[in-house]
Amino acid sequence: MRFDILTIFPDLLASPLTEGIIRRAIQDGKVEIAIHNIRDFAADKHAMTDDRPFGGGEGMVMKPEPLAATVQHVREQVPGGKVVLLSPQGRTYDQALAQELASEPRLILVCGRYEGVDERFRDHYVDLEVSIGDYILTGGELAALVLVDSIIRLLPGVLGCADSAANDTFSRGGLKYPQYTRPRVFEGDEVPEVLCSGDHAAVSEWRLLAAVRQTLNRRPELLATMAFNSQEEKLLKKHGLLDAVRERQRGARSE
Amino acid sequence: MRFDILTIFPDLLASPLTEGIIRRAIQDGKVEIAIHNIRDFAADKHAMTDDRPFGGGEGMVMKPEPLAATVQHVREQVPGGKVVLLSPQGRTYDQALAQELASEPRLILVCGRYEGVDERFRDHYVDLEVSIGDYILTGGELAALVLVDSIIRLLPGVLGCADSAANDTFSRGGLKYPQYTRPRVFEGDEVPEVLCSGDHAAVSEWRLLAAVRQTLNRRPELLATMAFNSQEEKLLKKHGLLDAVRERQRGARSE
Repeated sequence: MRFDILTIFPDLLASPLTEGIIRRAIQDGKVEIAIHNIRDFAADKHAMTDDRPFGGGEGMVMKPEPLAATVQHVREQVPGGKVVLLSPQGRTYDQALAQELASEPRLILVCGRYEGVDERFRDHYVDLEVSIGDYILTGGELAALVLVDSIIRLLPGVLGCADSAANDTFSRGGLKYPQYTRPRVFEGDEVPEVLCSGDHAAVSEWRLLAAVRQTLNRRPELLATMAFNSQEEKLLKKHGLLDAVRERQRGARSE
Repeated sequence: MRFDILTIFPDLLASPLTEGIIRRAIQDGKVEIAIHNIRDFAADKHAMTDDRPFGGGEGMVMKPEPLAATVQHVREQVPGGKVVLLSPQGRTYDQALAQELASEPRLILVCGRYEGVDERFRDHYVDLEVSIGDYILTGGELAALVLVDSIIRLLPGVLGCADSAANDTFSRGGLKYPQYTRPRVFEGDEVPEVLCSGDHAAVSEWRLLAAVRQTLNRRPELLATMAFNSQEEKLLKKHGLLDAVRERQRGARSE
């Protein structure tokens, strides 16, 4: 998979792309990442990439031509590629969208800055506008890195068995059960006995109940996307959780 | 404001913290950022910070002692500070939480990795668990950077007038109106005439209508948090938008 990242702060992106799993994926030839400085494609002698908004108001707006020229340039190098604009106006990014984008051969990520980009660049060039959450960043660079990181780890062969993505939070819709490792006693607090029992069925039951309780307490709206088989429903019922789960699932469907 | 970031990948954080507005805020003495390598606080000779989960399953879990020792160390240097764990199980980060955290004198940000951190570290040390969105990253480092970036820009005197935060998306609850800058004609597409009219009242009306339409189309659930005065309601009514807005607001309240 290939990523082209368009930015006016190319240096900002350096260190996260040369560490950990992203670095390994690049070294293994699974991923190619090219960074393009939008400023290099500004036509005027001052390399201006932003200007004041029509209609007044504070702040600066990114000019359409340098952005368009950069997209044209990267498509001349390698044709095709979905253009994704990172902006708070975009579709909210989630694991399903990460999965969807992981099947693309190439993404062209455009990092907005300031008060946003000229609407006509959006209209003419952008295939998908994505927001990583309902908060404001100084620019789209961190958002682009979030996409790159979350997508790369889903590509075949990038994560080893040891850090497989199949067991992730959200992979079955809700939050994950709590995890414990050594030492068995930490600051007087012991690992739950069942986890040390070697009884795999009992561990599975404990983890399912703990995951459902955690989701109920913290993110009940996520229960709507969780499915349980009849054995799991029996277990939830036995522990007095089934009614609360069903109520949340019904509530979500009628919204 | 002071940030302490706890990570096993300190190098990953380097470039985003030395560019743009974050660099300027550090230079101006408005923000202090210290990065701590959790590995330096591992007690055993192999500097192990993770181990296999009790109860089995794939992946590794971050051990509680090195994390606890690092928190204790940073609190010996400077006492106090809220401990924030970045994890997909956390409270969903949004602009309101950014505002809330911007009033803290100090945040200690703990970057999780692998299959998560030992539950007892969470129980004993973590004041707040935060998720930047419903997707999985290879670690909490990018999430920590998102918090740092979004919080720093809200601190007094960090943004100039030219890039004020008052006019942000979400600052009045919904999405923002489209922005246009020069040239007046881009690829045959003209800037809406009203924005070039100099008629401030007409510009304001156009922007309000465009913001409401954009929010209705893309993120209707955000309308629930928007408030309109009677003059604005009259304008929405005149353009046939008031019923759609009210319906969305009623729907949200009854959920």
